[in-house]
Amino acid sequence: MGDADFDVIVIGAGPAGEVLAGRLADAGYATAIVESHLLGGECSYYACMPSKALLRPAELLGETARVPGVDEAVTGALDVGAVLRRRDEIVHDLDDGGQVTWLEDRGITLVRGHGRLAGERSVRVGDTTLHARRAVVVATGSTAAIPPIAGLAEAVPWTNRAATTSAIVPPRLLVLGGGVVGVELAQAYASLGSDVTLIEGGPRVLAREEPFAGEEVCAALREHGVEIHAGVKVAAVARPAPGGEVTLTLDDGRKLTGDELLVAVGRRPATADIGLDAVGLEAGEYLQVDDRMRVEGHSWLYAIGDVNGRALLTHMGKYQARVASLAIGGDEHVRATQDGPGAPRVIFTDPQVAAVGLTEAAAREAGIAVRTVSSASSGTAGASFVGRSTPGTAQLVVDGDRGIVVGATFVGFEVAEWLHAATLAVVGEIPIERLWDCVPAFPARSEIWLRLLEAYEAG
Amino acid sequence: MGDADFDVIVIGAGPAGEVLAGRLADAGYATAIVESHLLGGECSYYACMPSKALLRPAELLGETARVPGVDEAVTGALDVGAVLRRRDEIVHDLDDGGQVTWLEDRGITLVRGHGRLAGERSVRVGDTTLHARRAVVVATGSTAAIPPIAGLAEAVPWTNRAATTSAIVPPRLLVLGGGVVGVELAQAYASLGSDVTLIEGGPRVLAREEPFAGEEVCAALREHGVEIHAGVKVAAVARPAPGGEVTLTLDDGRKLTGDELLVAVGRRPATADIGLDAVGLEAGEYLQVDDRMRVEGHSWLYAIGDVNGRALLTHMGKYQARVASLAIGGDEHVRATQDGPGAPRVIFTDPQVAAVGLTEAAAREAGIAVRTVSSASSGTAGASFVGRSTPGTAQLVVDGDRGIVVGATFVGFEVAEWLHAATLAVVGEIPIERLWDCVPAFPARSEIWLRLLEAYEAG
Repeated sequence: MGDADFDVIVIGAGPAGEVLAGRLADAGYATAIVESHLLGGECSYYACMPSKALLRPAELLGETARVPGVDEAVTGALDVGAVLRRRDEIVHDLDDGGQVTWLEDRGITLVRGHGRLAGERSVRVGDTTLHARRAVVVATGSTAAIPPIAGLAEAVPWTNRAATTSAIVPPRLLVLGGGVVGVELAQAYASLGSDVTLIEGGPRVLAREEPFAGEEVCAALREHGVEIHAGVKVAAVARPAPGGEVTLTLDDGRKLTGDELLVAVGRRPATADIGLDAVGLEAGEYLQVDDRMRVEGHSWLYAIGDVNGRALLTHMGKYQARVASLAIGGDEHVRATQDGPGAPRVIFTDPQVAAVGLTEAAAREAGIAVRTVSSASSGTAGASFVGRSTPGTAQLVVDGDRGIVVGATFVGFEVAEWLHAATLAVVGEIPIERLWDCVPAFPARSEIWLRLLEAYEAG
Repeated sequence: MGDADFDVIVIGAGPAGEVLAGRLADAGYATAIVESHLLGGECSYYACMPSKALLRPAELLGETARVPGVDEAVTGALDVGAVLRRRDEIVHDLDDGGQVTWLEDRGITLVRGHGRLAGERSVRVGDTTLHARRAVVVATGSTAAIPPIAGLAEAVPWTNRAATTSAIVPPRLLVLGGGVVGVELAQAYASLGSDVTLIEGGPRVLAREEPFAGEEVCAALREHGVEIHAGVKVAAVARPAPGGEVTLTLDDGRKLTGDELLVAVGRRPATADIGLDAVGLEAGEYLQVDDRMRVEGHSWLYAIGDVNGRALLTHMGKYQARVASLAIGGDEHVRATQDGPGAPRVIFTDPQVAAVGLTEAAAREAGIAVRTVSSASSGTAGASFVGRSTPGTAQLVVDGDRGIVVGATFVGFEVAEWLHAATLAVVGEIPIERLWDCVPAFPARSEIWLRLLEAYEAG
């Protein structure tokens, strides 16, 4: 295509960019979206979606063993080939044709290629210059960080991309990093038959969550056969033959060997090569934005999703997309107020971890008069039927002065759907006394709320 | 035991009575509880608990067929014997020994026998008279209603009691009534192998819920092989030989034959023989109470649970028990405000129905400027992994003037845990604009909220 003008140009067609483009197009703005890889982004092909496709089957098969009558009907093991085929379906065999149709239906102009800012309201894609009358939105996301460990880059390790799309299950998988990606994929591959060893440099896995969450997931992973080394760093990596064995040397001298190595030590913003220098911004950094998603000092430039570093979560990127679309449309009042570190989050291990708001430590640091209450997540009548006797703790962090829940963490079997009520309690600031009137239905497992309120009342 | 004095006497040890007694005993009141049958009540032995034990296995087995990798591991059918044995475990083989220990641990005096009011603050059990210094609480619950149909009583039909504890699965089961008990047990027995025929006198099943809920459950039951006749009444019942075939004659002349007949046409309060006449109240009626659970005109008499007719649900009985315990303890402010027809409720069919607050019709009748929005319950990314492509609709009823959700109904696979968030939205009166800040985590199925908010915004 030749040079062209639009109302808004979006760079990056992940969930945040797509939601934004869709909303703007629906509102009548001439909108272009620039994407160099797959429409749908990291989440759809290399993260949330395929990882859940790999995790769900073992979780469900585990549940069948806890329900008499069904247990007897299950005589075989997990069919790994079928799991991988379903994962391929979930990622549409890395074909984004469906998304192309979605854009076309909305009249959004798709520009395939690598987009770079080329000055105010200007984006360069190959030989073409696009001009934005109203706004440019950066939604380029993030990529896996590769730490500067000797020999690591040369070993060509897996990142989330290879790990979520692999056609094979390595007999021995080494996982570097015990954050969300590390624990989810350690669990997935262990369930598919790999001998998994996870190495976490910090003292515990899931360091950003409540300590009990990391401990309970750690215990479950070990139960599933995952070997975990925490509080130890990798000093060097060696892979003498391409595609051959990988050996890690730990800083205490021990060596670990595997057939594949997954690096999952965090993300970095995909801003190294998007022309930030052309508008006076620093390449390689997160783009700092205000609560309307506007890059400071550039009234025409917005950044949403992972690339602004506020909350690296698909749903928060979509939330920011709505805010940005309304802000670009002229809404003077809209603000993103909930996308910091307390944003709702789910880790789809077994047990799952679902959390929102402040951890106990963060609440204390904020000077809140903290009271925590907890209960076994399986401590309800409903747990006789779902997730029977499975491990995990449910905890509320309460601001005792205000009588308001400021944080919640649930660890347990299929607790993902518990989270939204906690999010409403925290964000909606529903007083504890009013929560007593919000009666969980018997025998749903949501009666965990009753357990927690009773614990709070017993004081 | 001989005559004795207590602070509080509770008649009936179902969930409501037990919760109340436990709270009062914990608060230091000398408490007696009178029970003629099983401690734990209808819910534990003959209703919520065993019905879920009968329903859960087929629900779970159905899900295995939707998850590639697990489907291949399932080669057998539901083991009906194992399901029934697990059901027996759930109802503790109708042994309430565990509950006795629970009472003993709290210092509650258990009086086995049929309790009858014998005047102000006085309860007679056999030859013993108990006197209450502070309050008497009636928590005798409800029993299955048997309508006056010719030949019905003589046919000795099943009620919920026999149906939830049966050691056999009748080859052909007739179910009279399409309310919660009728549809749940129709589904359960169909899944266990019965040929089930359900007859509903009204125009549709689940008449108190949104019309789409009844329609969707009806469609699913038919899919599971249940034959449903709605809008037709039973004129006569004949069972010539005890335990033999039962034949129903419908009012249009058709005849239906089965091996067993379940009557599930509603409940009546268990107040026929509890001495109400001794205190000037009418036997056989629901006990009218105020929002503090006090029977009008009797400052010392309370009624909680099914027996007061406010909301025949275990969780609402427990809610009322807390209110009554605080009121009895002298709290001037406590009120039950959420236990009317809009109380949270779940029907554990497959699909499940979970609802809270007003139906659309009830909201219109209340003069509210209603806007409803709906979405397919499987219309989220999360539904790729859980309940894939299963039927069901999610709907919010919004007060358009106030921008507040006043009712929610979810029909779908395992939507029970979705309900609590809706209850918080309705009871907590969180404005729609604030609900946008309550971001459901991707890819949890709770993203249904995003679908519903988007539909509301699109207006």
